Amino acid sequence: MDFSDFFPVWNDLKETERRLLTSAATELNVFKGAVISDGKDACSGIMLIESGQIRAYTTSPEGKEITLYRLLERDICLFSASCMMNGINFDVTLAAEKDCRVILIPSDAYKHVMSESAPLANFTNEVLASRFSDVMWLIEQIMWKSFDKRLAAFLTEESAIEESDTLHITHEIIGNHLGSPREVVTRMLKYFAAEGLVELARGSIRITDPKRLSALS
Amino acid sequence: MDFSDFFPVWNDLKETERRLLTSAATELNVFKGAVISDGKDACSGIMLIESGQIRAYTTSPEGKEITLYRLLERDICLFSASCMMNGINFDVTLAAEKDCRVILIPSDAYKHVMSESAPLANFTNEVLASRFSDVMWLIEQIMWKSFDKRLAAFLTEESAIEESDTLHITHEIIGNHLGSPREVVTRMLKYFAAEGLVELARGSIRITDPKRLSALS
Repeated sequence: MDFSDFFPVWNDLKETERRLLTSAATELNVFKGAVISDGKDACSGIMLIESGQIRAYTTSPEGKEITLYRLLERDICLFSASCMMNGINFDVTLAAEKDCRVILIPSDAYKHVMSESAPLANFTNEVLASRFSDVMWLIEQIMWKSFDKRLAAFLTEESAIEESDTLHITHEIIGNHLGSPREVVTRMLKYFAAEGLVELARGSIRITDPKRLSALS
Repeated sequence: MDFSDFFPVWNDLKETERRLLTSAATELNVFKGAVISDGKDACSGIMLIESGQIRAYTTSPEGKEITLYRLLERDICLFSASCMMNGINFDVTLAAEKDCRVILIPSDAYKHVMSESAPLANFTNEVLASRFSDVMWLIEQIMWKSFDKRLAAFLTEESAIEESDTLHITHEIIGNHLGSPREVVTRMLKYFAAEGLVELARGSIRITDPKRLSALS
């Protein structure tokens, strides 16, 4: 993959700027389950996701979790370089949900180019605005949507990402995505099963009526 | 007030850029209660708040509200110019909570300068990151904090903003700030009153034990 696949403004950068970014960049594998970064001091750099899937989440002081958004192929991961963005006063944890192949541009190099390049600064602004939009969507979900709708939406989305009707996921992990206790997830899944929307087995959930599940969400 | 009071990067802009921004800007009064803008298509422009107070909130399809953050003197209001920021896919409503004196820089002029000025683009990024941080703080409050703590924090903050122990605010308006039904607010306020933290009267709440209220938050 090419840098221009990630940066629509690539050709608006100066030749020297492009060279600075490409020569600083390294390609690396991040294995499923690896925590990539976990706070506002994260400084490894901007990650361009060539393949794989990254989950961004926040945790409570007691270790409860809620998923903020997911990054997929061709997405840019900004919060692995939180340190270079003034004004970011919160911690986002980033973890690989699948094996990932990423291009890492170190924070120093990126910040250096961004400080002089209006196109890159404006594009970075756009990426930040997209993540902000993801989080605003989440607030609306939490505030205005009942838990059955949120769970139905999560299962539907997960099924689309995995391209499968059968999800190998525990109730606890679903709880971590939705910021809800495991028991609440289990109770609602049992209700979904009783309604014929899903079938539950140990360690997996099969969506038996994707249309109604999606309509519920 | 001077533009450099709002833009720490003012002296990093070119003379022509500064002139473009100042000549496009107008100063205006916004009266208490006025809705300044209400969506992602908002395009009036960037507002520099010389005095007053603006509330940013989001609403549910049914008209329920929750406060996202407040802007005070010397703050910059970005979302009155949402239209110029690609990647913003959510609606923020902005309303004056007090009479405001603001400098309005039309979106076109601001976007024009920002598209060519790395310092202004990076600074705008910083302002956006601050708002993003406000909203992340809110998510953490909603997800991990019980309602008594959130209400105590709200009353404490409100008292600081108003510089008064007596708040002239209805339970319904508090509910709109916190995204909670009026009845829930009333019930908790009665509990606070029974605990000796506040005294309730028609249309007002007097904080009688600010220390304990603040400790509770």
